[in-house]
Amino acid sequence: VIILHGASASPFVRKVLIALALKELPFEQIQQIPFTRDPVYRNINPLEKIPTLQDGELTICDSTVICEYLEDAYPRSALYPDNAVDKARARWYEELGGTRVAELAAGIFFQRFMRPMVLKQETDEELVKKIIDKQLPPILDYLEAQVPAEGFIFGDFMIADISLMSPFVNAGYAGYEIDSARWPVFSDFVGRVTAHPVVNQILVAEAALMGRS
Amino acid sequence: VIILHGASASPFVRKVLIALALKELPFEQIQQIPFTRDPVYRNINPLEKIPTLQDGELTICDSTVICEYLEDAYPRSALYPDNAVDKARARWYEELGGTRVAELAAGIFFQRFMRPMVLKQETDEELVKKIIDKQLPPILDYLEAQVPAEGFIFGDFMIADISLMSPFVNAGYAGYEIDSARWPVFSDFVGRVTAHPVVNQILVAEAALMGRS
Repeated sequence: VIILHGASASPFVRKVLIALALKELPFEQIQQIPFTRDPVYRNINPLEKIPTLQDGELTICDSTVICEYLEDAYPRSALYPDNAVDKARARWYEELGGTRVAELAAGIFFQRFMRPMVLKQETDEELVKKIIDKQLPPILDYLEAQVPAEGFIFGDFMIADISLMSPFVNAGYAGYEIDSARWPVFSDFVGRVTAHPVVNQILVAEAALMGRS
Repeated sequence: VIILHGASASPFVRKVLIALALKELPFEQIQQIPFTRDPVYRNINPLEKIPTLQDGELTICDSTVICEYLEDAYPRSALYPDNAVDKARARWYEELGGTRVAELAAGIFFQRFMRPMVLKQETDEELVKKIIDKQLPPILDYLEAQVPAEGFIFGDFMIADISLMSPFVNAGYAGYEIDSARWPVFSDFVGRVTAHPVVNQILVAEAALMGRS
């Protein structure tokens, strides 16, 4: 049986949850929090990050490594395009979504959600302003030119779409919305991905979980 | 023609150089330095990192995305094992080499090489001591248990071997050596990968370039 370690509100765990749902794979989820210095989890993932996936004897970490594995081991409902050039573009969008986009969205989420709601600390509004006004715009300009005005990036709904959307769910929890006047194409795209029935189902479950905790 | 943007001394550019050499693919290299705020390069790579690879109409960034593409587009001399489980393990080693291992090695390289040699600044010895005495040992303990006592991880010489070795070249430029009494298996493994004829050739060319610059 597949075991997924990772708390649902992580943009990276969410990506894997959506991939598992698209492929209709049964799994058990452990709501692991990252960086807890738990020696049992450190033994599974030396970086103490989430997610980690176990499938039989195999233990792998990192959402991209996990999604590539799911694609290879369970090819039904493809997550990546099958020609080399499109697959490379898909991987680059996945990388961009999982690095710079995720970092900036996490900055907003941490300052405007985790600090006031969970840690009972003050938000560093200077830092949030810098992210929203200076750091995100060049990335959003780039993405505005990359995504399609209709449908999904490679036609079918795939990992590239999920990876570029997922961080914005967390920024959304913190009240951030992509300016639809300035980036109409990308803003619509994120809305379209979020409204996909499989994504919607994951987001509803996640919201319930967050409300409960 | 394939164009590789990136300076040879980067652990990530080195990884791609080795991959291209293993596959015997002709290419042109532009010795691009990262984070220069050069608008032309930013247009190619919005993150301003290195490497970026162009092949015809395709532009992709990130050494892992690039190596996966080279594997798909030019399958001769495989960089990844072909069964799903080993391929997943290979990707995880590549990820680990490119994230935590690379970060820690870059910390040593920056403090003990870039600062005194290039920037004419003092080394933060506290920080280096923390990396060497606290942060690297748990990762080296983990790697000691992962790599084989002889040969390469998946039998043939592949991307997992290259990815786990490459950061230690930079740490080596800064005088760091893996303690072979404490981590004999991993230390020998890195020596073995470094001595591979294709790697050796790349390292000789790189040393010449660094000496000249």
